[in-house]
Amino acid sequence: MPQKKSLRILPLGGLGEIGKNMMLVNYGQDGLIIDTGIMFPENDMLGVDYIIPDFQHVVDEMEHGLKIHGIVVTHGHEDHTGAIGHVLDSIPAPVYATKLTAGLLEVKMKQSGHRQHPLHVISAGDVLKLGPFQVETFHVCHSIPDSMGLGINTPVGLIVHSGDFKFDHTPVDGWPPDFAKLAEFSQRGVLALLADSTNADREGWTPSEAVVDQAFEDVFSRAEGRIIVATFASLISRIQQVARAARNHGRKMAVAGYSMTEYIKVATRLGYLDLPDDLVVSVERANKMPPEQVVIMATGTQGEPSAVLGRLAWGRHRQLEIREGDTVIMSAHPIPGNEEMVHRTINKLIQKGAEVIYDPIAQVHVSGHARREELRLLINLVRPKFFIPVHGELRHLTQHALLAQELGIPPENTAVVENGTELLLTPNSLRIGDRVPGSYVFVDGKGVGDVGPIVMRDREVLANSGFVSVLVLLDAETGELAEPPEFVSRGFVYLREASELLEAGQALIADIVARSQGGNLTKKIEDGLSKLFYNETKRRPMVFAFVRKVERVRSR
Amino acid sequence: MPQKKSLRILPLGGLGEIGKNMMLVNYGQDGLIIDTGIMFPENDMLGVDYIIPDFQHVVDEMEHGLKIHGIVVTHGHEDHTGAIGHVLDSIPAPVYATKLTAGLLEVKMKQSGHRQHPLHVISAGDVLKLGPFQVETFHVCHSIPDSMGLGINTPVGLIVHSGDFKFDHTPVDGWPPDFAKLAEFSQRGVLALLADSTNADREGWTPSEAVVDQAFEDVFSRAEGRIIVATFASLISRIQQVARAARNHGRKMAVAGYSMTEYIKVATRLGYLDLPDDLVVSVERANKMPPEQVVIMATGTQGEPSAVLGRLAWGRHRQLEIREGDTVIMSAHPIPGNEEMVHRTINKLIQKGAEVIYDPIAQVHVSGHARREELRLLINLVRPKFFIPVHGELRHLTQHALLAQELGIPPENTAVVENGTELLLTPNSLRIGDRVPGSYVFVDGKGVGDVGPIVMRDREVLANSGFVSVLVLLDAETGELAEPPEFVSRGFVYLREASELLEAGQALIADIVARSQGGNLTKKIEDGLSKLFYNETKRRPMVFAFVRKVERVRSR
Repeated sequence: MPQKKSLRILPLGGLGEIGKNMMLVNYGQDGLIIDTGIMFPENDMLGVDYIIPDFQHVVDEMEHGLKIHGIVVTHGHEDHTGAIGHVLDSIPAPVYATKLTAGLLEVKMKQSGHRQHPLHVISAGDVLKLGPFQVETFHVCHSIPDSMGLGINTPVGLIVHSGDFKFDHTPVDGWPPDFAKLAEFSQRGVLALLADSTNADREGWTPSEAVVDQAFEDVFSRAEGRIIVATFASLISRIQQVARAARNHGRKMAVAGYSMTEYIKVATRLGYLDLPDDLVVSVERANKMPPEQVVIMATGTQGEPSAVLGRLAWGRHRQLEIREGDTVIMSAHPIPGNEEMVHRTINKLIQKGAEVIYDPIAQVHVSGHARREELRLLINLVRPKFFIPVHGELRHLTQHALLAQELGIPPENTAVVENGTELLLTPNSLRIGDRVPGSYVFVDGKGVGDVGPIVMRDREVLANSGFVSVLVLLDAETGELAEPPEFVSRGFVYLREASELLEAGQALIADIVARSQGGNLTKKIEDGLSKLFYNETKRRPMVFAFVRKVERVRSR
Repeated sequence: MPQKKSLRILPLGGLGEIGKNMMLVNYGQDGLIIDTGIMFPENDMLGVDYIIPDFQHVVDEMEHGLKIHGIVVTHGHEDHTGAIGHVLDSIPAPVYATKLTAGLLEVKMKQSGHRQHPLHVISAGDVLKLGPFQVETFHVCHSIPDSMGLGINTPVGLIVHSGDFKFDHTPVDGWPPDFAKLAEFSQRGVLALLADSTNADREGWTPSEAVVDQAFEDVFSRAEGRIIVATFASLISRIQQVARAARNHGRKMAVAGYSMTEYIKVATRLGYLDLPDDLVVSVERANKMPPEQVVIMATGTQGEPSAVLGRLAWGRHRQLEIREGDTVIMSAHPIPGNEEMVHRTINKLIQKGAEVIYDPIAQVHVSGHARREELRLLINLVRPKFFIPVHGELRHLTQHALLAQELGIPPENTAVVENGTELLLTPNSLRIGDRVPGSYVFVDGKGVGDVGPIVMRDREVLANSGFVSVLVLLDAETGELAEPPEFVSRGFVYLREASELLEAGQALIADIVARSQGGNLTKKIEDGLSKLFYNETKRRPMVFAFVRKVERVRSR
């Protein structure tokens, strides 16, 4: 643990990699956690369900006296909430969140066996006393309601954390960001600002959510058939916008899909979504209504084949199908890595007769993260002594630090670090400290962290060329083959059309067995087959042989 | 084959899917082929090297009398040339291409055993007589020099094919598109226009290549260390731009990587690239020069780990390494599907101390395809009776057709079809014909078309959860296990930490064997293990058992 007198800020996640959002802030033995996010696997992280931050180092330090006084969750998105169950298993500190965030956390905490765990519902503006830290929460705008940033009064000074944010003057819920609080922090003097870097390589100002209203208005005005709006289940404000457009144009709204229905339930119960009773109809009901009176809300904007939109595109939905004349609005951008599947989904929907509206055809989605003009405004509002870009890849953090320097913050007062690297802050200095041990923690089924580079490498080889297993039984007396070798193979060649290849493999084994003068017969067979298969196919399947000497094989 | 009196246009490729560029045009028994492109696999096309168009239908018709009078290749990009060897194996028609395109085709034709095949070098403006077709070639601008479009005089009328194009008034080679020819076609009357749809969902006008000069000028003016410019090996004009900037700023240019060196050789020999002798130095030489005097050209803009930039990012290049103070220019956009790897490469380069310049930070790349304003201009220049969007996904074709309709072409005079669907054209009609049989043709190693949906599905399962093979030898006398079952597994769990799981597997097999009353023991064991593994891990590896009854196992 770092020496007393300095505040440690430690972003967690895959070591040296771009993990998701979880951060330890501690002063000596007293600490707090900000956010507990998960990350979704990239295309080459085969078989991984999701990735959680590596917080083992925090757990280790807790055994040596570190006390975590609270876990503060800034908003309800998965990349800030998703790992709550895993975190509470090891770090059982009280959780603090605003009403909507808490409502969403509650569901996850129940599922992970933490139903009884203390979860404190707060409002933006509340002040939390967590050990030596006094945390002043403040409202920010983002693509989910009830998001907040944090002003953390620490023994070394005031630290401001932006949370995920954009400066939207006309947000859907009418609640603009708390500029006054930021200005007040500034007057009191801010030691360090930690700010969202997601869009730090985009010039300009992220358009207001109100822009989407106009785009919806255009589409609703001219659509003659059904309208299907796909968006993130958690994009509560977008659902509100669709509801408004539906009401204005005399359409009823149906919701397809479990996760969106659940989000809508929580948000409605907590007062973050206002859907008049006579607006919402069941999917069954919508199916019987004239198409021009219907809007259907759905998930699946990332091209996930199992989400509602994916099922519609491939004609596999139980209740709904795309009809000629439908208009589908893709009210989300593809997350990098999902582009291919998103484009494929759009093409399939068009194939089935739908008109599909997506950005750049019309501005039916806007980002929830501030661009460079907003980032400049934040820095000049807060006027921190030190600047620490957070949230985003290294390229975003780097651009954000350069931007701060353009505004007059000296380079030595900014620090770009990847997850797993400590930052040490005193009233007069910002220093990059040690890297803590750790790496990505992959969750695959029940396994947390057991799938590492070796398993991943094997999956890659299997994905490219499959495997071949062969059973070689030798007669113990004669040393000859007791039966023809039997092959099992998947993912290598289409077996029904590969009989020649397998016969060549059997002949090769017979030859190796006949000429074998001892030595490792299993290895000789595996190597020989690998070479044969590569020469014949230019593919490299994994090859395994079971070799046994037996006295007469009786039956299969 | 369609009835005489109509011209058939048949885009080839994966049936009903987005393949790449190859097209049959025929009138009765007389036909020609335009382009022979390949497509690169998407992220879920596991183990596939590349994809070729399905032209079996053409081959079948050739057996029934169809004569292909020529193969015309519009420009030298892989998605228009890459399948030439495969095509010539089955369709041995003479090939026509401009000088640079022919130079690039020649290399491929040698490699695929078609060194002696007739390859006619033409110039844009030449007229080809191919059976009943008179093909008037004309110059267009694209991201490779010497690109052309085609005016095809057919028995039903004049067909204009744009090729891949943009309307660049200030191209790097100073050779703007042949507007006069397009106007002349228009005066003669154009029956149908086939035009490039790649950017049909982008409003505005694609910036000129000259914009990149300005961005390079900015970067070269302020860079204090080495400059590394990564781009496509085939982007000859970009290499010319870098050479100019290098000369203007007193830097020498080194080229790293085989494919770019080869492209540069061909382009220089044929006069499409002007690199003064004293400008170019070897990589070894560049390594010894002061950093501010060096530019290095490299490939790897798509994040390919084996390309030069990928090796630099991961510290695996034989001759070069990234140094603090290097500036890396990513002079290309990620092709959809490559974003993750591109971003990871950028982050790794930054981690090693480089400054990385990419769009949107600076406009160091522009597209080679026309946007909507250019597409409007093309249509109004050519004023065709019928309009057929080509090149691009269904979503692009659809937008392009809508754009044509906005310009007054009646909807019934436009036709959007996917690859594998015939279009039938007469002087007075455009009709959508049959779908021809076919699908994607995957090339994997030596195999062409042998990897189909079944192998692909197996690779997906293996990629997600791996496999388990087990050898179960039973004593023929007692029916009991003759030895403990042996497991081989990859991609499922990390075996060294899974001993409990394997012991449970062995115990389960012992139990199944002990209680077995006949029946299919292999299946019982496989099913039992699958269930056990799923319950314990929530993963679904492929499970295979070899079961044999033997008399005494002697040795391994």
